[in-house]
Amino acid sequence: MREAYQLELGKLADDLAEMCAMVAGAMELATKALLEADLTLAEQVISGDERIDDARSACEEHAYALLALQAPVATDLRTVLAAIHAAESLERMGDLALHVAKAARRRHPSAVLPEPVRGYFAEMGRVAVSLAGKAESVIRTQDVAAARALEDADDEMDDLHRHLFTVTMDKDWAHGVASAVDITLLGRFYERYADHAVSVAKRVVFVVTGRMPGLGEEDL
Amino acid sequence: MREAYQLELGKLADDLAEMCAMVAGAMELATKALLEADLTLAEQVISGDERIDDARSACEEHAYALLALQAPVATDLRTVLAAIHAAESLERMGDLALHVAKAARRRHPSAVLPEPVRGYFAEMGRVAVSLAGKAESVIRTQDVAAARALEDADDEMDDLHRHLFTVTMDKDWAHGVASAVDITLLGRFYERYADHAVSVAKRVVFVVTGRMPGLGEEDL
Repeated sequence: MREAYQLELGKLADDLAEMCAMVAGAMELATKALLEADLTLAEQVISGDERIDDARSACEEHAYALLALQAPVATDLRTVLAAIHAAESLERMGDLALHVAKAARRRHPSAVLPEPVRGYFAEMGRVAVSLAGKAESVIRTQDVAAARALEDADDEMDDLHRHLFTVTMDKDWAHGVASAVDITLLGRFYERYADHAVSVAKRVVFVVTGRMPGLGEEDL
Repeated sequence: MREAYQLELGKLADDLAEMCAMVAGAMELATKALLEADLTLAEQVISGDERIDDARSACEEHAYALLALQAPVATDLRTVLAAIHAAESLERMGDLALHVAKAARRRHPSAVLPEPVRGYFAEMGRVAVSLAGKAESVIRTQDVAAARALEDADDEMDDLHRHLFTVTMDKDWAHGVASAVDITLLGRFYERYADHAVSVAKRVVFVVTGRMPGLGEEDL
């Protein structure tokens, strides 16, 4: 029984790690679509979102089966529930990548991003993808120290996000209100994506240590 | 066993209904704080958020105890898991009210909202509070038809949100970029709040009918 449980739990962790890789890929493509006003890439992210939703459903079904068949208690129970929460965060990360792709498509063939903020989004994209990759590796290795490193990367995202505000709100902003509105929402999508990645890693820390690190209020 | 389970499940539903009332109250006060640039109300929402977080933890603990002690299967299991998801959505609704209150505090004593959008936010606040109230009543009555009515109210929110964009993006917008950025984020907070309320109601429909209505992609 116990062995079967561990085996199933291992499979569930593999599903989650796979979801991390999927949402990292989605955000990487979405950012490229945004920076290069590339409609084909945007469409690829948009049509690919269903796969992420399906993966989340599969994770949940897997977790349900585990609960129903093994009726775990104590830490085992919390582990499975943490996995369900993590799958929800990962699906949400996929949705946020989808929003970025949709913004790129909405303005096509125009570029969404005026020159002064392109660098910010290239960086935010890089940090976002790296966070999802780190979450994947935390799930695969169950390395608690690595989970803590995600918070540093998330601080980097928060800094970028804050600076982005100072750029659009500057009195010398010359790209109009509509563009500032687009950028505000896009910035928020990246920042939320990063928060969810941190939350996934924290769930894994909880699974390993039995203690939940503080789920900090998002920085806004 | 079965009776004890039903009793516990009833208590869990009461906890969730109580959370609905809390987040409705938070959004009502936050909207008032925003419209009237009222710092005292804003502070009240900000300091009150902890109570909502605690209520969510209590719901989760309650659900965990139910799972561990009763080891429900099939529909019963899904019911408890739906409650855990609903509690998460409700905590998030509290966070979104908190963000509104923080925006009011950040700009105090200035008003965040220029005249042309005040009416939109008064309406969005009204719809948001009404959605949380409807979610509460769906939980208390388990009335599936009432749950469907939430979708209409959510459509109303989406319309308001969409129109809000046309106002700030209009070439005649005379209130500057910084204000448009504030309004963009605030509009998103209300729209997300409404989405979460709908998701709570859908979880209840699932609990009652055993079938999950489509969890529509948020409208953006």
